[in-house]
Amino acid sequence: MNRNDIFNQIIKKKSFLCIGLDTDLNKIPKHLLDFEDPIFEFNKRIINKTKDLCVAYKPNLAFYECLGPQGIKSLEKTINYIPDDIFTIADAKRGDIGNTTNKYAEAFFKNLNFDAITVSPYMGSDSVKPFLEYKNKWVILLALTSNNGSLDFQTLEDSEGYPLYKKVLSTSKNWGNQDNLMYVVGATKFEELQKIRKIIPDHFLLVPGVGAQGGTLSNVAKFALNKQCGLLVNCSRSIIYAGNCSDFDEYARKEALRLQTEMSVILEKYF
Amino acid sequence: MNRNDIFNQIIKKKSFLCIGLDTDLNKIPKHLLDFEDPIFEFNKRIINKTKDLCVAYKPNLAFYECLGPQGIKSLEKTINYIPDDIFTIADAKRGDIGNTTNKYAEAFFKNLNFDAITVSPYMGSDSVKPFLEYKNKWVILLALTSNNGSLDFQTLEDSEGYPLYKKVLSTSKNWGNQDNLMYVVGATKFEELQKIRKIIPDHFLLVPGVGAQGGTLSNVAKFALNKQCGLLVNCSRSIIYAGNCSDFDEYARKEALRLQTEMSVILEKYF
Repeated sequence: MNRNDIFNQIIKKKSFLCIGLDTDLNKIPKHLLDFEDPIFEFNKRIINKTKDLCVAYKPNLAFYECLGPQGIKSLEKTINYIPDDIFTIADAKRGDIGNTTNKYAEAFFKNLNFDAITVSPYMGSDSVKPFLEYKNKWVILLALTSNNGSLDFQTLEDSEGYPLYKKVLSTSKNWGNQDNLMYVVGATKFEELQKIRKIIPDHFLLVPGVGAQGGTLSNVAKFALNKQCGLLVNCSRSIIYAGNCSDFDEYARKEALRLQTEMSVILEKYF
Repeated sequence: MNRNDIFNQIIKKKSFLCIGLDTDLNKIPKHLLDFEDPIFEFNKRIINKTKDLCVAYKPNLAFYECLGPQGIKSLEKTINYIPDDIFTIADAKRGDIGNTTNKYAEAFFKNLNFDAITVSPYMGSDSVKPFLEYKNKWVILLALTSNNGSLDFQTLEDSEGYPLYKKVLSTSKNWGNQDNLMYVVGATKFEELQKIRKIIPDHFLLVPGVGAQGGTLSNVAKFALNKQCGLLVNCSRSIIYAGNCSDFDEYARKEALRLQTEMSVILEKYF
C-alpha cells in the first residue's frame, strides 16, 4: 500500500485510527474460549465491527508468539481476514543485522503479507534497509515512544543538546523516504511533535498514547498534522477491551466511533 | 541456569563457545530437505556433534519465524533436544513496553523454556524488567554490536564524551545484576572491551564477531576475561555451514573443535 492509498483511505473514512490487536486469552470474554480459535474469533468480531471506522490494524506480535505455533496460525488468519484496503502493521519491534533482517522481511512482508513492521533503531541501518527493498512496504521506526522507559536513552543529548531520538530521525530519513518510512512518536510528547515535524515534515507518524496515557487527539493534530494527514493514531486496549460480555464488539465499535467522530471533525477542518 | 552453573560448564568443557543456530532452508545440505522437518534434522545433527564442545546454543528467531507455525515447531523441538546443562539463548532482540514484555517472557521463558533472551535497550527499563522476574533466567542486552550499523547510534557521545552504549551499560546494570543480566559486545570492539569491563567487571558478555568479522579470541580474552570467565563467544555460520555435504556435521564439529581447543589454552592459562 502506498502513501496515496493511505491518505485516500483517511479521507474516505474520515479517520486516521489504527486499532491495536493486543489480543490476550486472559482478557477476552470467557465465552469465546469455547471456539476452536478464540484469538481469531475475537479479532474477527472486532474487525467486523470496526473496519469502517479505522484505516489500520496493528497486531502486537508478543500476544501471538506467547501462544506458540497456534498463535502464529491465529495471526495468519487475522491478517487474511483484514480487508485489503486497510493498512496492516506488525508491531514486532525487530532490529538486527542485515542477513537476519532479510529473514524478518520474509516472515512479515512475504509470508504474512503485512504492509508494515515496527523496528527498533539501536543496531542502525542494517536493521532497516533490507525491509525497504520490498515495494510498497513500510518500516515504522521507533523514535520517541510514550512509555516511561523512553526517558532512559531516547532523550539523551549530545554536546550540542541534540537528543538521540532526533538523531534517529535525521539519520534514518536518508535510508529511505516518506514513501517507505514512518516513525513512532508517542501522543504524550506533543511539545516535541512540532520539533519533530521540522525534521520530517512529510513522513507519517504512528502515534500511541492517546487516552489512558494522557495524550489528546486535538494536541496531536495541532502539532503534527501534515498535508496528507501524516498521522495514524493507535488505540489498543481502550477499544478492544471496552466491553467484556457477549456484545464486547459493540462496545469496541462505540469507542472506535467516538474516536473516529473526533477525528472527522479535525479532518474536516483541514481537508 | 545460574552464573555458577555456567562457569562450571565452562571449566568442565574447557570452552566458552556458543553456537548460533541460524538454520536456513536455503543453506542446509539438500538431502535434508527430504526429511519431515529439515530444520530440526539439521539442528539435531549439529547438536549431536558439538554438544561436548560448547556451553551454549543460540537459535536466531528470524530463521524460524520466516517459516511460519512450522518454524516455531522446529524451534520447540530444537530447544527440547538441547541437553539441560547447556545454556540456551533466544536471539530475538525484543524490546517493548511492560505489558508486551510480559508476553514475550511468557513466550520465551515459560513456554519455550529458554534460559536467556537478547533484548534491545531503545525503549528502556520497561523492555528489561519484566524478564528479570523469572528466577535463573537472563536478559542479554545489546550494548555495542559488531555490525556496521553499530556506529549509527551506539557510539554517539553526550556532552561529556560518554557514548550511548556505555550509558546503556551504566544505567541498565542497576535494573538487575550479574546474575540475571549479560551484554552483547562485538569481538571487533576489543579496544572498548577493557573500558566496558570497568563499568561491568562481573557480568557475562555475549560476544559475536570472532572470525569472519575480524575479532580474535585472544584479544577478546585479553581484554574481557573476568574471574568467572565472563565470556560466551558466539559463532554461527562459520560452524554450522562449515560443510555442505552429507557429513556437514563432521565439518561443523571440526570447526567447533578448533575454536574449543583455542579456548582451552586460554582457560588453562587463567583457571
